[in-house]
Amino acid sequence: MSGTARLIGVGVGPGDPELMTLKALRALREADVIAHFAKAGCASNARAIAADSLKPGVVELPLLYPVTTEIPKDAQAYGQMISEFYDASAASIAVHLDAQRTVAVICEGDPLFYGSYMHLHARLSARYPSEVIAGVSGMAGCWSAAGAPIAQGDDVLMVLPGTLSESELERRLNDADAAVIMKLGRNLPKVRRAIERAGLLDRALYIERGTMAGAVAMPLADKRDDGAPYFAVVLVPGWEKRP
Amino acid sequence: MSGTARLIGVGVGPGDPELMTLKALRALREADVIAHFAKAGCASNARAIAADSLKPGVVELPLLYPVTTEIPKDAQAYGQMISEFYDASAASIAVHLDAQRTVAVICEGDPLFYGSYMHLHARLSARYPSEVIAGVSGMAGCWSAAGAPIAQGDDVLMVLPGTLSESELERRLNDADAAVIMKLGRNLPKVRRAIERAGLLDRALYIERGTMAGAVAMPLADKRDDGAPYFAVVLVPGWEKRP
Repeated sequence: MSGTARLIGVGVGPGDPELMTLKALRALREADVIAHFAKAGCASNARAIAADSLKPGVVELPLLYPVTTEIPKDAQAYGQMISEFYDASAASIAVHLDAQRTVAVICEGDPLFYGSYMHLHARLSARYPSEVIAGVSGMAGCWSAAGAPIAQGDDVLMVLPGTLSESELERRLNDADAAVIMKLGRNLPKVRRAIERAGLLDRALYIERGTMAGAVAMPLADKRDDGAPYFAVVLVPGWEKRP
Repeated sequence: MSGTARLIGVGVGPGDPELMTLKALRALREADVIAHFAKAGCASNARAIAADSLKPGVVELPLLYPVTTEIPKDAQAYGQMISEFYDASAASIAVHLDAQRTVAVICEGDPLFYGSYMHLHARLSARYPSEVIAGVSGMAGCWSAAGAPIAQGDDVLMVLPGTLSESELERRLNDADAAVIMKLGRNLPKVRRAIERAGLLDRALYIERGTMAGAVAMPLADKRDDGAPYFAVVLVPGWEKRP
């Protein structure tokens, strides 16, 4: 509600606006300020998902990454730039909170699952009332769109970033019943090689824009190494022992 | 819509009815028949979540497990009983589909993530039009309620059933950046020992009924071994390298 300093991390789901929760919609209605992360020059995915549910004329606060995948993450410069960016983003949100406004940070998928919101939460939640509204994750959107049961019973499911080395991916895949590999982008050829070496190519699916227009779902074996969006995923469904 | 044979797996989220998606609500409105799994003698969790959104007088089809945790899962009797139960459940749904009705199978959390719906999907989706509506998972409800960022950046996240052996749990935990341990119940003392041996007790959280009334979230170190519901979870948040 207005007149109250409140920070809300709002998961808006994997892409289809109908996969927003009732609670997320209520937060969009109640917020005085809508903040969203985006790459400079690109539209925010979260904002695109929530677009039709925003109050007309609501104050928007875009938080523009100074850098995303252009610099290796282990470079010192990357760490410093991104840390300063989160500090500055938290400070710009705190200005609104200090003015007793409710700020909703909208997040693709779920806010605390590989999302940038957690950097704001860590910087602000001790100082201001805060709440996190869980969302449908991108990976759940993908396996649902593909109709692919991902894990069952005593399956061990691993969520693996495609940024891991090929040998590390292979080692992990050899030890998993089911796996989701995220952050594909230019990592796709490496991910495919690791999956082949682990003997899992016949089970693996490639999914792009799972619940959005132009969704692609196909066996990974049929997907060419001609590029993949960063948010595409590879699924290796488990559930080998089916009753 | 009515007059159309359609099978829909509907994720109704982790417990708070407000964490249902718009798409789930639409499915509940459009369905001619609402099916739900439950243990005989107990109310269905999914039905309790969706209760206020069901059409008055809608046909309901309860699917009652003949057995849940009373028989070891590796016992031959368990496998046969549960397989026959899924066959019979699919057959009772097929009767409605053959009569051109839309059947929504409501599922706690997400239908294809450790859910029973997948057994119906595997038996029916090749024969009838089907759709899966992703839901907010129970684990996302738990880490959001606790305000605990679970994984970030290059973290490897493992989802581990508490039914694994103590040594296997310890081995897996030693190799994970972040972990979610499900199916606690009587496995809690074993899970705690494995977490202690992996040196993770100071990071672990115990969460019960994450987004429901009477939610409990506490350090695992403070939780006594005096019993836990089957649907409680332990979280070991990752995200050690924070920018």
